[in-house]
Amino acid sequence: MSESIPARRLPSVLLFSLVPIAAWFVVRPLVDPIPSLPALYVSFGFSIFALLATICLVPVLGPTFVQANLKGRDLLKTYSTPIVYPFVNPIYSICILPRLLNGSQAQYTVREGMVINAFPHYQLSVYLSSLLSLLIATMLGFLDDIFDIRWRHKLPIPIIASIPLLMVYYADNGNTHIVVPIPLRPLFGPLYYLYMSLLSTFSTNSINILAGINGSEVSQAVVIALSVVLNDLLYLPWPTGFRIPLHLLGSRGEVEVGGVWSAGMAYGSTELVERHLFSLYFMLPLVGVCLGFLYHNWYPSRAFPGDTLCYVTGMAFAVVGIQAHFSKTLLLFFLPQIFNFVLSCPQLFGLVPCPRHRVPRFDPERHLLYPSKTQFLKRPLRLSTVVLRVLAGLGCTELTALPDGTILEATNLTLLNVLLLRFGPMREKRLTQTLIAVQITGSVVAFAVRYGLAYLVYDGDRR
Amino acid sequence: MSESIPARRLPSVLLFSLVPIAAWFVVRPLVDPIPSLPALYVSFGFSIFALLATICLVPVLGPTFVQANLKGRDLLKTYSTPIVYPFVNPIYSICILPRLLNGSQAQYTVREGMVINAFPHYQLSVYLSSLLSLLIATMLGFLDDIFDIRWRHKLPIPIIASIPLLMVYYADNGNTHIVVPIPLRPLFGPLYYLYMSLLSTFSTNSINILAGINGSEVSQAVVIALSVVLNDLLYLPWPTGFRIPLHLLGSRGEVEVGGVWSAGMAYGSTELVERHLFSLYFMLPLVGVCLGFLYHNWYPSRAFPGDTLCYVTGMAFAVVGIQAHFSKTLLLFFLPQIFNFVLSCPQLFGLVPCPRHRVPRFDPERHLLYPSKTQFLKRPLRLSTVVLRVLAGLGCTELTALPDGTILEATNLTLLNVLLLRFGPMREKRLTQTLIAVQITGSVVAFAVRYGLAYLVYDGDRR
Repeated sequence: MSESIPARRLPSVLLFSLVPIAAWFVVRPLVDPIPSLPALYVSFGFSIFALLATICLVPVLGPTFVQANLKGRDLLKTYSTPIVYPFVNPIYSICILPRLLNGSQAQYTVREGMVINAFPHYQLSVYLSSLLSLLIATMLGFLDDIFDIRWRHKLPIPIIASIPLLMVYYADNGNTHIVVPIPLRPLFGPLYYLYMSLLSTFSTNSINILAGINGSEVSQAVVIALSVVLNDLLYLPWPTGFRIPLHLLGSRGEVEVGGVWSAGMAYGSTELVERHLFSLYFMLPLVGVCLGFLYHNWYPSRAFPGDTLCYVTGMAFAVVGIQAHFSKTLLLFFLPQIFNFVLSCPQLFGLVPCPRHRVPRFDPERHLLYPSKTQFLKRPLRLSTVVLRVLAGLGCTELTALPDGTILEATNLTLLNVLLLRFGPMREKRLTQTLIAVQITGSVVAFAVRYGLAYLVYDGDRR
Repeated sequence: MSESIPARRLPSVLLFSLVPIAAWFVVRPLVDPIPSLPALYVSFGFSIFALLATICLVPVLGPTFVQANLKGRDLLKTYSTPIVYPFVNPIYSICILPRLLNGSQAQYTVREGMVINAFPHYQLSVYLSSLLSLLIATMLGFLDDIFDIRWRHKLPIPIIASIPLLMVYYADNGNTHIVVPIPLRPLFGPLYYLYMSLLSTFSTNSINILAGINGSEVSQAVVIALSVVLNDLLYLPWPTGFRIPLHLLGSRGEVEVGGVWSAGMAYGSTELVERHLFSLYFMLPLVGVCLGFLYHNWYPSRAFPGDTLCYVTGMAFAVVGIQAHFSKTLLLFFLPQIFNFVLSCPQLFGLVPCPRHRVPRFDPERHLLYPSKTQFLKRPLRLSTVVLRVLAGLGCTELTALPDGTILEATNLTLLNVLLLRFGPMREKRLTQTLIAVQITGSVVAFAVRYGLAYLVYDGDRR
């Protein structure tokens, strides 16, 4: 696939050992006559398959993509190997489908006596509109990769992709369960549509602008997706007892010791359980696909995610945030992205010059990354100077100025540069690891705020 | 956009005169408080907008597509100008959306006292799954255009795209209204899924293989879409009286003379009306987009449809045929495609050698098209000889043989070559016109069979 980067090969023993595990999860609900949460089992199995398929298919598809001119150049390497943008989304889409095929006829027991019919038609509409949004995001992301759409033009793309979500919300006559003061209610409808559009725009673009080093986009997606999965699992009913299969003892059936289902954070609300299951069906395969892709995207990258992956992961987060009604919690998982976005604003809105790429500067001799700089060709505005001085005071940028205080240069306003300023120059791989650590810290803070502090602010219904 | 083909420009008077007409259809349901069939009005208005948008956008997008290497070479021209594949499907998709936005809240009166609620949730699922299928077809068609997938590999693509259709059908527990003898019923379910997959495969590929000359694919799509529209219109209730607006006479309100709604072919069945309205919502914008694109694709082509357009139009036909339950009638509109497919079988299945392109041969000096030939490099099989002799006897091919009867050459087995054999060599534009005439004749025969002969075969419920 390339001359300068050696092909990366996982020991196939590892891959083959995962196949029976995946198969067990897919087949188990067919064998066990009254399974609990069967679609979730299947979804988990297919997520493992998604992981394996992505790991295996990327090297196979690579040369085809290079031939079709779908390649990029790594900005931070001495060699300029063409790097492949693969197209992992079909695997992702296919792995969401089993939820429908499996769940459409099945009923499952969440707790004793509490039976949920897995497929009312409203659920089907929600599910189909979510898939439609993901697919529009895939297509627009792919167009972006091919035509290299300008920054200003691509901003509204996620709004187009969220139209199906808004449509279903509209067709459902806008039944949200958010508590709004009565005088604000007429305003609330349009505002909520605006909020949903902005959420998808933010989740999509915020990952895309915290990019530029090997593995950064995909690892952010993995950490956020895992945080969402963890949050979902809190709402599921879990068996607190043990089920001992009697065939181990030479008999049929099983004995339940304890046999009580915990209510989880849902406190017995089937609606909440349903919503978080919906979220899991979209997030588990996403984790699978992203982990598989990260294997090839890890330093030194053999494959680039392109804009397509950012669009799709961003849209997937927006979809679960909106449809499963936990958009505020979701935003908490985006803390590093929010910080990066707010920090970038002076450059995005023209107060500070914004070069085409703001990735850290690479020193090919020492193999280290340094904060990249933007230069003022004209004398900066008064406002720009004030903003930059404040940011420099906070340690978010480093300025080069004339003795009279006129700013000549500033480091680009990105989280990656801030990390390099704070921890000193480092290798690219180390910077990606630092970014992952920051993202995980963000999620820990998010959980603390959501389940610790929220008690102080709200009480009762905290959906 | 190109040096050798002059740009094609419609008089802008013509374009601008259509804008108010389109706007009237879109706005009218908002002005008229109790409109009949409002979503249909809006859909018609948006179809005119689709026509205008396609005519205007193709030349604008052209250079971007050439730059992204999305271009083809016209096989039947002396010049080898790169020709643009445009991407008209986003316009099409956007123009289907109004049906949902408009129809979701509205109720409309089909006949006096017969009120249809335009949006039960099952309808929404059907609609969303149809959009999803169209979008998957768009994406796979686009991938095909970029990666140039081999013939054998692209055959199952429409099956993937039809998965959402099958899913919704499955979730609806397969309530079809087709009369099946009792012993065949257990077989019927799986067979019907197979039939639906095959229908989408056929409608997609059959347009794609009757291609190769300027305007052929798009004009087939236009004629078939117009035939479907005409068939749908037969099922709508039409006013048989007149409504005279009294403000013409200086008063308010209106007087209805006659005021009776005809039942159409639906004989008062709201379900049939619903289905054919669904079909119209998908077909009207398709006609708009295809007519607009035909303007640029007409001889000499300034834009190529690529595989994307064939996939999307084919899938759109399959969607309406399946969801509106008139797949048999639909197949009747594909008579020329069926003839072409059956004729092609000996080449598709390897009995007769199949070159990469089977388009007619172009004589650059006389500017005429002649039937193209395939050569037997090895001695043909006994079966091949028999098949070719029979086809030659029917006037479907012309053979070159040794005195001992060994076949050396045969004209390629396509409808286009048959037309050239029958009517003699002609110019490319003339051949496209002949093909259109054949397609229209096919539709006339289809209507005659459907509404004439069908009375002899079936009686009663002929859905």
